[in-house]
Amino acid sequence: MQIPAPLVPPKRLLMGPGPSEVAPSVLRAMSAPTLGHLDPDFLRVMDEIADMLRVVFGTENRLTMPMSGTGSAGMETLFVNLLQPGARALVGVNGVFGTRMAEVARRCGAEVVTVEAEWGQVFSPEDFAAAAQGQRFDVMALVHAETSTGAAQPLDGMRAVADACGALLLADCVTSLGGMPVELDRYGVDAAYSGTQKCLSCPPGLAPVSFSARAEEIMAQRAAPAQSWYLDLGLIAKYWGGERAYHHTAPINQLYGLHEALRLALEEGLEARYARHQQQGAALAAGLEALGLSLWVEPEHRLAQLTSVRLPEGFDDARGRRFLLEEFGIEVGGGLGPMAGKVWRIGLMGHGCTRPNVELCLRGIEAALAEQGVTASHPAS
Amino acid sequence: MQIPAPLVPPKRLLMGPGPSEVAPSVLRAMSAPTLGHLDPDFLRVMDEIADMLRVVFGTENRLTMPMSGTGSAGMETLFVNLLQPGARALVGVNGVFGTRMAEVARRCGAEVVTVEAEWGQVFSPEDFAAAAQGQRFDVMALVHAETSTGAAQPLDGMRAVADACGALLLADCVTSLGGMPVELDRYGVDAAYSGTQKCLSCPPGLAPVSFSARAEEIMAQRAAPAQSWYLDLGLIAKYWGGERAYHHTAPINQLYGLHEALRLALEEGLEARYARHQQQGAALAAGLEALGLSLWVEPEHRLAQLTSVRLPEGFDDARGRRFLLEEFGIEVGGGLGPMAGKVWRIGLMGHGCTRPNVELCLRGIEAALAEQGVTASHPAS
Repeated sequence: MQIPAPLVPPKRLLMGPGPSEVAPSVLRAMSAPTLGHLDPDFLRVMDEIADMLRVVFGTENRLTMPMSGTGSAGMETLFVNLLQPGARALVGVNGVFGTRMAEVARRCGAEVVTVEAEWGQVFSPEDFAAAAQGQRFDVMALVHAETSTGAAQPLDGMRAVADACGALLLADCVTSLGGMPVELDRYGVDAAYSGTQKCLSCPPGLAPVSFSARAEEIMAQRAAPAQSWYLDLGLIAKYWGGERAYHHTAPINQLYGLHEALRLALEEGLEARYARHQQQGAALAAGLEALGLSLWVEPEHRLAQLTSVRLPEGFDDARGRRFLLEEFGIEVGGGLGPMAGKVWRIGLMGHGCTRPNVELCLRGIEAALAEQGVTASHPAS
Repeated sequence: MQIPAPLVPPKRLLMGPGPSEVAPSVLRAMSAPTLGHLDPDFLRVMDEIADMLRVVFGTENRLTMPMSGTGSAGMETLFVNLLQPGARALVGVNGVFGTRMAEVARRCGAEVVTVEAEWGQVFSPEDFAAAAQGQRFDVMALVHAETSTGAAQPLDGMRAVADACGALLLADCVTSLGGMPVELDRYGVDAAYSGTQKCLSCPPGLAPVSFSARAEEIMAQRAAPAQSWYLDLGLIAKYWGGERAYHHTAPINQLYGLHEALRLALEEGLEARYARHQQQGAALAAGLEALGLSLWVEPEHRLAQLTSVRLPEGFDDARGRRFLLEEFGIEVGGGLGPMAGKVWRIGLMGHGCTRPNVELCLRGIEAALAEQGVTASHPAS
């Protein structure tokens, strides 16, 4: 075969649902010399990562660390460790990731009861309570920030519903972590997972997870080991914990990147970081509406870091995204499932959440509309 | 909390069982700007990676790509996709990774029959045939290059045994890929996995895998989906294949690194690369014996890229490795399982497999022996 040329990836402005823009110092950190996974200097890096993750997760949870896979591996980690065949899971489904949680739970041999809502809507505690019908569940799971729709799920009151059905409370925090308050301990979340390529602004490849003491107790009582050896927390905790027992070879350079990304988040300050996301998210929403476009999610449940905007009548989705990519170097995301062809998903995540990016993106969308001769007329809301 | 300082990892010379030394251009590639996982430019990177992997795997297999996890995720990929509850697996166990394969197969609900050998020994086809006792198996699995012992398992004749028991032939190629001929098609291997942090000299985080058409047929006939959603090849093949359907967000920058690492291997030429490993491996073995040390594995089954050397009587393992790390900046590996405290494992993998590294390592070991006042006297073999 002909040997390919060295890579020279073009510079895009990543404004889709992830991966997001990566800070130069994170990319530099990833290219530092590789250390061995048992090197004393690397073990210190691991401890610092775990400490910083506890801060962004808003938790004191001992069992807090990144799994060696992308966000979906984090999702699977929760279910393979917390469920056993015959367990019962109550899962909120209002987008791709709730759907995926239900599927993963079923593959663990669990009986799954779903709570359904329209994509873009969120759940009240009463929705979960009604679906539970007074029955017992092992886990109750919901998506804190639905990457497929742009909806922010409030966590208030969910702990009480989980308690009433005897369940651990699980949350998908893939798109929330680092971009809005997560606060696992405040809301009584027992297990959560995230990804690095959203509001932490690190390349994809790691899945931060965190488990409460109660979740650890449940895992300690398992009759049989987790069906996944690779994601078995009983084994992995021995490497990330005190014993440093070899399990698998940690993705060293990815972890360097996460270390730097977390450092940047803490140096900015979490409150300032969340406020920045709120401010730019609001500016984007206002700008899109000023272009005559309407947003998929109602104002009170919009994620600042991910906006789903409706495509106007007659607008060609694929052609529009190609135009934006080729003419402006901007990547946005298309819709998934029932939203395919109907929306664009625009991310303002972490390092990329800036006023110039908002302005450029709005200008690009305006040009994409003009290129197709489409005029949008959003009724004043 | 106090925010940690930016990372400045010390430069080690990685001469353990992996991760191995990484070429500067691979580290640079990993710090290129992140692309979206559906960006047309990134899709071309994926195709080039798959094409180059086919060359190093020695296969025409369509289903060839890196999984988004470390080598152990590659192992799990084979078993969760090829086994179903009640399936039967015949597994060769002569080190950590055969042991791990048996465990992973059991967690897939398979009935596992092991073929056992002393750690450091290899199997003959007759060993497998005798263990099979004329029974049927779904898979027959062995380790091509045992990272825990340094033994090279010949593949000749294994296909016929697998055929006789109706099994797919599976091979762990973690430490062989890129350092010695793998040649899946020549030996009739149906499914293989590897890691990037050994003889491909890329940081850890990806697991190249390859599946024959026969293995694909077996997967297509599954009654139930794989127990792992994250590693479900039926879904992942749609992303790496023609449809480009979103499954999970690929670890973009890790894949940049693998692209460059594969490019370097092909630019060197595989024959030249394997010869380099043979030459330096032989030089290391001769040098260790000249120091009066003896090797764990018999000459005819030694891996050139990984050498297990016996520690002499009275030598303190941990103190010796600390000395080597602190005084020479060299990392070597300790023994695992029954070999713990008895050997060091010295890697000459990929980019780090050079004459200067061999010489420096020998000088370091000589100094480590002297520092403890230990004299080794290897009986002339």
